[in-house]
Amino acid sequence: MIRAASKKVVVVGGGTGNFVVLRGLKKYPLDLTAIVSMADDGGSTGVLRDELGVLPPGDVRQCLVALSNSSRLMRSLMNYRFENGGLGGHSFGNLLLSALEKVTGSFEKAVEEAGKILYINGKVIPVTMNQVRLKMILRDKKVLEGEREVYLSQEIDKGYSSIYLDPYPKVNPKVIEELDSADLIVIGPGGLHTSLIPSLLVEGVSDAICRSHAKKIFVLNLMNRKGQTTGFKSSHYLNELVRFLGKDVFDHILINIEQPPKALIDFYANEGDIVENDLDDDRVLSSNMLGSLARAPKKDLLKRNLIRHDSNKLAQELMKIVNSL
Amino acid sequence: MIRAASKKVVVVGGGTGNFVVLRGLKKYPLDLTAIVSMADDGGSTGVLRDELGVLPPGDVRQCLVALSNSSRLMRSLMNYRFENGGLGGHSFGNLLLSALEKVTGSFEKAVEEAGKILYINGKVIPVTMNQVRLKMILRDKKVLEGEREVYLSQEIDKGYSSIYLDPYPKVNPKVIEELDSADLIVIGPGGLHTSLIPSLLVEGVSDAICRSHAKKIFVLNLMNRKGQTTGFKSSHYLNELVRFLGKDVFDHILINIEQPPKALIDFYANEGDIVENDLDDDRVLSSNMLGSLARAPKKDLLKRNLIRHDSNKLAQELMKIVNSL
Repeated sequence: MIRAASKKVVVVGGGTGNFVVLRGLKKYPLDLTAIVSMADDGGSTGVLRDELGVLPPGDVRQCLVALSNSSRLMRSLMNYRFENGGLGGHSFGNLLLSALEKVTGSFEKAVEEAGKILYINGKVIPVTMNQVRLKMILRDKKVLEGEREVYLSQEIDKGYSSIYLDPYPKVNPKVIEELDSADLIVIGPGGLHTSLIPSLLVEGVSDAICRSHAKKIFVLNLMNRKGQTTGFKSSHYLNELVRFLGKDVFDHILINIEQPPKALIDFYANEGDIVENDLDDDRVLSSNMLGSLARAPKKDLLKRNLIRHDSNKLAQELMKIVNSL
Repeated sequence: MIRAASKKVVVVGGGTGNFVVLRGLKKYPLDLTAIVSMADDGGSTGVLRDELGVLPPGDVRQCLVALSNSSRLMRSLMNYRFENGGLGGHSFGNLLLSALEKVTGSFEKAVEEAGKILYINGKVIPVTMNQVRLKMILRDKKVLEGEREVYLSQEIDKGYSSIYLDPYPKVNPKVIEELDSADLIVIGPGGLHTSLIPSLLVEGVSDAICRSHAKKIFVLNLMNRKGQTTGFKSSHYLNELVRFLGKDVFDHILINIEQPPKALIDFYANEGDIVENDLDDDRVLSSNMLGSLARAPKKDLLKRNLIRHDSNKLAQELMKIVNSL
């Protein structure tokens, strides 16, 4: 691996979608950076924010695990959730990040140290170091307070008048440096209102993406989320991102065209529908990128979130672009 | 460091006393083993035992930290205690051990993995893998249930009729191997009824110590604990250990003869008195081994447990014996 010659790939978002991208790309000789939304406030992360006053560890933990080259045991440990008592629901990795934040006095340092413990290939950078909450005002004036409320809402697809971070955060200066020097910027897949847009709501992030000389790639989600993006097609996603970016800067749009079996689509009808492509655009790159679980033996139909990208296939498509630079 | 030629030193007990011995000895090219009592059930450790059903991590954590060659930050992290909420009172290191026990399915494997994470110089071996509780029946028939109750009792020095582990545990076979192949066995300093005796209550441990060809050293405590060993002199400690060992097997008894300042002794009068030596025995090795905080600037008089051994001085005395082997 020749570091000096390796391309810098910056992945924006955080959460499960980023996990798939990072896990695939970490196997290549890239200079890889994950920029992580800091709006998470659900579950273990929410409790830690409330009780300890720490910054949200959950999405950072996922990115660290995705980039980790440590043993399978260490990665299992990071995702292990305590089941009982006062610890119930906390993932060990979240506790590690929160304890490191307390001991070092800085979340940034905590992420760096956790990265060393996990031998990560790349960097994980919180988009802001401010304590922020995601807020959303729906068309009927109802206010959703916090990412968890946004995530659980079933009314977003009726329209919203605004989405913002409160208080308006300062960007982590390292984020701008990374975007300025990137060769490739990847946005998505990921929760539109809970991962992708929140990163773009931080001061200066959209501007930095727009002015960067990097190629910009949008990886389209596989599934719509019911009550949030019901019936969205690729153009809806693109339009939403462009609204927050300020202009349409994407060089390529990566779209999966492999159909999951009908039985699986039916099984997930209560959670959401398949995203269809309505873009007739030569930026669209189509390929088969479904994970093996989405090609679906019936016995696995009880597991959640089976319709995912295959991290290796997605990485291969992204690497075609990297290799063309 | 030539491993093949290094002497095997086995330290028996666990807890704060062992910490001092191990921290000093880890700087020498020894084959070092800590055998840890598994009766701890107070504080964070007690909650984890009750809520998660894990084996007690607290004393093991202390030994791991004592032997660790990792960064100061990692050692601080292991001892960091969460302050608020459902996590309040838990030390991070205890959570690490308990999560590792859950993920690996074995406390032994958990200790081994934590040892790797902390780059320990030596081995930490739980005396038993059974879930046990320390019990003590006082002369007035009152029963103390658990190490914490024993630790907090102020009536033990009135006499007790029995002390035992419930249920009667099987020894960890590795403990016997270590004792059989030891060159030096060190017992003490440490809580007589809460650390030292509990290790000897496990099936086969006393026998293995007695039959081992190792030199056996007893390091006398500096302070008596009020209500527990009030007024004990060196002969009382020795007699108690001999009672549980079955015979007096000690080759040397290491005794500190440096007096703490009177102001400090007065300050600690409520917690206990200084242990005096009444043994006129050529096995006694006397030297100045007080830690610097026990040589006592007055401004520090508010801190707890200042009267401690200096780990380097104690290690130097032990190394004189090792080097004579």
